[in-house]
Amino acid sequence: MEAQKLKHLKSILANFKTIKKITNPNSSKHFLNFKSYNFLLGNNKIITREQLIKGKLDGSAIIVIPMLSNNEFLCVIEPRVFTKLTVGIGFPAGYIEKNESEETAALRELQEETGYTTSKLIKLDEFYQDEGCSAALNTIYLALNCQKISEQHLDKDEYIEYVSFTLQELLELESLGYIKGGNTKLALAKLKEYIANKEKIIKERKLK
Amino acid sequence: MEAQKLKHLKSILANFKTIKKITNPNSSKHFLNFKSYNFLLGNNKIITREQLIKGKLDGSAIIVIPMLSNNEFLCVIEPRVFTKLTVGIGFPAGYIEKNESEETAALRELQEETGYTTSKLIKLDEFYQDEGCSAALNTIYLALNCQKISEQHLDKDEYIEYVSFTLQELLELESLGYIKGGNTKLALAKLKEYIANKEKIIKERKLK
Repeated sequence: MEAQKLKHLKSILANFKTIKKITNPNSSKHFLNFKSYNFLLGNNKIITREQLIKGKLDGSAIIVIPMLSNNEFLCVIEPRVFTKLTVGIGFPAGYIEKNESEETAALRELQEETGYTTSKLIKLDEFYQDEGCSAALNTIYLALNCQKISEQHLDKDEYIEYVSFTLQELLELESLGYIKGGNTKLALAKLKEYIANKEKIIKERKLK
Repeated sequence: MEAQKLKHLKSILANFKTIKKITNPNSSKHFLNFKSYNFLLGNNKIITREQLIKGKLDGSAIIVIPMLSNNEFLCVIEPRVFTKLTVGIGFPAGYIEKNESEETAALRELQEETGYTTSKLIKLDEFYQDEGCSAALNTIYLALNCQKISEQHLDKDEYIEYVSFTLQELLELESLGYIKGGNTKLALAKLKEYIANKEKIIKERKLK
């Protein structure tokens, strides 16, 4: 990545960093919750497991990798208050709402967080967020040819900026430790696999 | 994968499947918990975020990819009661205990879950489990030349069997949907990158 671009990125990140952290005195309305169950297994053993609940739902989410016409990918910068840097770089993502399809959630989150939309979503993969204690099933989409159609629409508790990077720059940001969320890392690995596969197919066609 | 091996695997999986699920009547002692905080950011905005707590700790974990002398990798089969299959295939993994180092946790979990140990742990990557609501930082290790030195040591609420697979078989199990946990998928992607890199270096050395 050019030194100037990395310097500019660092100046954006500074706005997102945590300056002060205090226990919330008014936490009676909470988003996280859990339920406990007993399970009878195929071998007749009984085990107890707790399930993480997010906003009364199972926490399933979508992750969208927005590709622009210049072949760069749109990333979002967000406060990640529990991490060491207290700020993270990732792809647009969010929880699926009640009675919402994965694709609708992907389009909604993409537009809310960046103002962009896409005419083509390609599903790259799906995975469980935290198999041991959650039913959350996340879907990774690649969104082709994204176009800016509106402003961001953020909740009052959200603060997000977006920046675009080449695949090479994304991999560099990962090795520098700026991209450190498991979901973003997995999405990036699946994007890399998808592009390598595409290039392999194009090469094979040319050889024929 | 040979049809016979896949058939045998399916018969093992059957033992792990959930037959019946009931709400736990006695869930006063719980593992999952949360804390709520307010954060002042670099741009002077104040946001509220909840942190997931696991057993009074932040939930940081290790994932170990045990490589055997025949170049196969050891996997564990476990009940994954909240997933669609209700059983999962992954690598040995577990939470880091209080005052325990990542490496000690890796060796402990590897031996508890499989009875194997290793003389060489290679750190492949680290990542945040769930950046938005957790401080859990997970480390992925490759454990070389693993040797069986004891029986499993499982907690009374654990039920685990282990099976070994080639890298190709692991990728096949992923595409068949048997490997579907985000952590296992990311570990597998990092293993694939590590091996591809190694092979590239060996090839380049030969060309010189």
